[in-house]
Amino acid sequence: MPNEVVRDSGGLEVLGREECFALLGAAPIGRIVFTDRALPAVQPVNFALSGGDIIIRTVQGSKVAAATRDAVVGFEVDDFDPVSGAGWSVVVTGQARVVSGDGELARLRALALRVWAPGDRGRYLAITPELVSGRRFPARTGSVA
Amino acid sequence: MPNEVVRDSGGLEVLGREECFALLGAAPIGRIVFTDRALPAVQPVNFALSGGDIIIRTVQGSKVAAATRDAVVGFEVDDFDPVSGAGWSVVVTGQARVVSGDGELARLRALALRVWAPGDRGRYLAITPELVSGRRFPARTGSVA
Repeated sequence: MPNEVVRDSGGLEVLGREECFALLGAAPIGRIVFTDRALPAVQPVNFALSGGDIIIRTVQGSKVAAATRDAVVGFEVDDFDPVSGAGWSVVVTGQARVVSGDGELARLRALALRVWAPGDRGRYLAITPELVSGRRFPARTGSVA
Repeated sequence: MPNEVVRDSGGLEVLGREECFALLGAAPIGRIVFTDRALPAVQPVNFALSGGDIIIRTVQGSKVAAATRDAVVGFEVDDFDPVSGAGWSVVVTGQARVVSGDGELARLRALALRVWAPGDRGRYLAITPELVSGRRFPARTGSVA
């Protein structure tokens, strides 16, 4: 029996946690959202899921590495059809930590996590999802002047 | 004469302000980044550029409307080829304000700003860009295990 569609106060379909993780797992890129010197900051990153965590490779000493150290961060993935406007977004909020244990590092290196940006990205950042929310956007209902 | 390519410390090509605005102007969707009850928050939105400002329509009383009131926010657009990994991202940081003047409201209504999400979006939010930065990502150089 299909689940009933749940909508938020704005009329958007609310995605369940399981669907959110399925969409997360298939997304080629995500955006990490954090606070950098008291300002909201965002950066696109490659990532992988491992053991329920979001895994990102960063450069030691980079802005992301410094600003997210033991901080609560946001993480967003989405996909929209530019013509119809139909799409979805998933937002995760959770604690970020630098992965330091040898066993966990070995496991993450085996992920073959793709890295698009050049440079040495020897540091792994793990985000443990606490809040997970997703929305589906319908095809555009028309331009509103 | 073509400009010399400028690279950041991570080896990524740095985009000039003019190119950043050209990419912003052509992007179908952006992501507003803000702080919501002391946590980093992000939400995809439709937007338009007007007089150098980023214009977003929001629902009065929505999370975005409440959390961005006279706050400094981030705004991000990007585009990546899922196969090659080539792409770019532009991040803007600036002051958000609710548009309230009759003249400015009339001008913004004439923008025919597309709205994908359902619901009454009678409120306009303007972000005046202060910091603008953009990066171009090269095609993937290969998986790194």
